Amino acid sequence: MKSHTRYKTFHTEERRELIRITEDLQSAVDEAGIAEGMVLAAAMHITAAVWINDDEPGLHEDTLEWLDKIAPPSWKEPANDVARELLPDPGDYRHHRGGEDNGDAHLKNLLVHHQVIVPVTEGRLDLGPWQQVFYCEFDGRRSKRMVIKVLGA
Amino acid sequence: MKSHTRYKTFHTEERRELIRITEDLQSAVDEAGIAEGMVLAAAMHITAAVWINDDEPGLHEDTLEWLDKIAPPSWKEPANDVARELLPDPGDYRHHRGGEDNGDAHLKNLLVHHQVIVPVTEGRLDLGPWQQVFYCEFDGRRSKRMVIKVLGA
Amino acid sequence: MKSHTRYKTFHTEERRELIRITEDLQSAVDEAGIAEGMVLAAAMHITAAVWINDDEPGLHEDTLEWLDKIAPPSWKEPANDVARELLPDPGDYRHHRGGEDNGDAHLKNLLVHHQVIVPVTEGRLDLGPWQQVFYCEFDGRRSKRMVIKVLGA
Repeated sequence: MKSHTRYKTFHTEERRELIRITEDLQSAVDEAGIAEGMVLAAAMHITAAVWINDDEPGLHEDTLEWLDKIAPPSWKEPANDVARELLPDPGDYRHHRGGEDNGDAHLKNLLVHHQVIVPVTEGRLDLGPWQQVFYCEFDGRRSKRMVIKVLGA
Repeated sequence: MKSHTRYKTFHTEERRELIRITEDLQSAVDEAGIAEGMVLAAAMHITAAVWINDDEPGLHEDTLEWLDKIAPPSWKEPANDVARELLPDPGDYRHHRGGEDNGDAHLKNLLVHHQVIVPVTEGRLDLGPWQQVFYCEFDGRRSKRMVIKVLGA
Repeated sequence: MKSHTRYKTFHTEERRELIRITEDLQSAVDEAGIAEGMVLAAAMHITAAVWINDDEPGLHEDTLEWLDKIAPPSWKEPANDVARELLPDPGDYRHHRGGEDNGDAHLKNLLVHHQVIVPVTEGRLDLGPWQQVFYCEFDGRRSKRMVIKVLGA
């Protein structure tokens, strides 16, 4: 059994940002030198996500708009009444009592998840034709890490 | 370390459909001939899900109704005001500019996820008594693939 | 390749409860005696979750409040209009026809997931500084099991 670990640091300019990482995963698999196995990509923070979906800018915008309604930030005006009612009842996240303002980013992390695991077949990520892997930052403008772990033979 | 890969193609009659795949996973484990390890099942499309839950028709109906409110399709009338407000603000998904109408299926895929990984113990899927694995199609009536990857010894 | 399996049983006093399990995962890794690999933690029930997030009581309260709006129980008054509209249209979950009252717990399980997989590097859980692993009970006051599976070398 072979294993290989790689870390990647992101420092986004925007608070919210999507970064395609499919190529990073493939390159970690190449370095590991495995033909068969799995590769795990996991955000090492609780205010970012790793997901697999389409690399289509319209969908990315749709997704971020939708996530801001479902798990609304309290640092900007709620998008509409649904977003307003999904904010916590005390008026702000209890999590913000300590001076944070990223409560919504924690909820988004739980909702769309911080990790994916991709099968590796004949040395390649075994993804469908439209599947791309993304790191999705919900609270950027500072250094955030992701771990890539390859396991196989 | 042993590994084994199997693909399964679905072509549902309905746009939305749940298909139980527990037996497919067990059978892939049997073919792999492993006693201990893990089996990954992942949709190879970004408009379908793989999840573990109860095999109970009432719950399946509840779940699909609920998902249509949380991540509303734009090809039918929203179920109620909450669903209407969770639609994108431009009136339709930006993703549909290219002629697609499955934006909601992408969101559902992110929400309930495209993959599960099941532990294998003594050659059997190590699931609880009520846990069944499902492929959940959100945009069917065409051929869609799923990959099953077994890793173990 | 080494593998190791451990089961943990929870019997919470409250219907909803969060229990930190990071130390259980590390101790299973220690027992397995692996340096490199992965450890999977999965609820064996369909009304509980396993997630990674902050060990911060305010955030836990925020999360449980939010989950009760997004996937509302029918055994208590909906928190507000959004929660009311996210309940099923027949007035109650179809799943409750058999005498259950935990339909919302099934939806929460789908939403925030029943499993995580943590990379293991040099014998340690490879988590970020704020990442803690939790078992989240949505329908407790009875015995519920979780499986921990370690795979590596």
